[in-house]
Amino acid sequence: MAYRETEKMRQRKAEARRRIVECTYECVAEGGFRSARITRIAGLAGVATGTIYRHFESREDLFAEIFRTATQKEVDKVAEALDTPGDATTRLENALRQFAERALRGPMMAWSLIAEPVDPKLEEERLVYRRAYAEHFERAIREGIAEGCIPDHDARQSSTCLVGAIAESLVGPLSPTLASQNSLTETDKNRLVDSIVRFCVQGLTGSRR
Amino acid sequence: MAYRETEKMRQRKAEARRRIVECTYECVAEGGFRSARITRIAGLAGVATGTIYRHFESREDLFAEIFRTATQKEVDKVAEALDTPGDATTRLENALRQFAERALRGPMMAWSLIAEPVDPKLEEERLVYRRAYAEHFERAIREGIAEGCIPDHDARQSSTCLVGAIAESLVGPLSPTLASQNSLTETDKNRLVDSIVRFCVQGLTGSRR
Repeated sequence: MAYRETEKMRQRKAEARRRIVECTYECVAEGGFRSARITRIAGLAGVATGTIYRHFESREDLFAEIFRTATQKEVDKVAEALDTPGDATTRLENALRQFAERALRGPMMAWSLIAEPVDPKLEEERLVYRRAYAEHFERAIREGIAEGCIPDHDARQSSTCLVGAIAESLVGPLSPTLASQNSLTETDKNRLVDSIVRFCVQGLTGSRR
Repeated sequence: MAYRETEKMRQRKAEARRRIVECTYECVAEGGFRSARITRIAGLAGVATGTIYRHFESREDLFAEIFRTATQKEVDKVAEALDTPGDATTRLENALRQFAERALRGPMMAWSLIAEPVDPKLEEERLVYRRAYAEHFERAIREGIAEGCIPDHDARQSSTCLVGAIAESLVGPLSPTLASQNSLTETDKNRLVDSIVRFCVQGLTGSRR
């Protein structure tokens, strides 16, 4: 009987944690990390604010978990897109295109993950994940060099150029303060994605797209 | 007599402020914003820590001033390099090269300005300055399009690709935690700068460099 109660409590705790994470995610996707207040999250999750701090040491730790989960999903998507059949340039093009399109479909979350000014702890996570993206790109670039569709060059270095170019060129369009986030038409978005991809692929191959 | 004393005090205050700024700069250039402690700065400047807070509301405000002054200098250098004679591609190439070379010559300061995880206030300054770099690049790209040395495309968008590509590709080499900062030979540095510039110019022109 004692055992069953403990099991039930464990389940209840896990369920509360899941709801906290889910509601934090919603808050961030709606207004960024800055606007995700603990009281608001607690209200949405139907728990006391104290409960949040039983699951997470601090607001920063909760945010770090959201950041990691959401970013890892994007990293996995890039890895998947790079893992499809086709020559390396096409795979890189698809991965970059998909990354930008996904960001523009969830602009506030993408802004929060890519560029929102956040505390140094989260900023450090960002640096780690940027390395993760770069490593996936680097592998594909090396494959492209081996296949002959990309001229021989320092793949490690150009992989970071890709990460920087795509992230930075999305900052403006995603920025909620620049107010362009909601004013982009589908045509604008397509044009934006095309031009990011063109710059990146030209940068790698040195051939006009 | 009262007037003269006030004037003297004003001069002494200005001199203390100048020393505080100078010593903060030194600390940041040596170990980044994180390691620039107020007690250390006060010691170097020969003032009480309280004096620092009479000149700056907070550590963040002092850091913001250092950040702005140091970054504005780099923005001006880019603007200057873009303003020399020659075709736009060459001017862009020179400006990018100079930016990267200067960063590699003062790696800790460059790391602090470009990528060190800092508090959100400073991070917002970073976004502002990234726009400033992009605007200078954009103007030169437009000139290149008008001159015919750069194919017609969205200059605003590609200017942000340049900013992202050059900044991100310097993060690894400059990072003090990755410990590569001091292990780069002159040949490594030249190769790195060449490959960043090549990626960027190829991205803009679509012609092999």
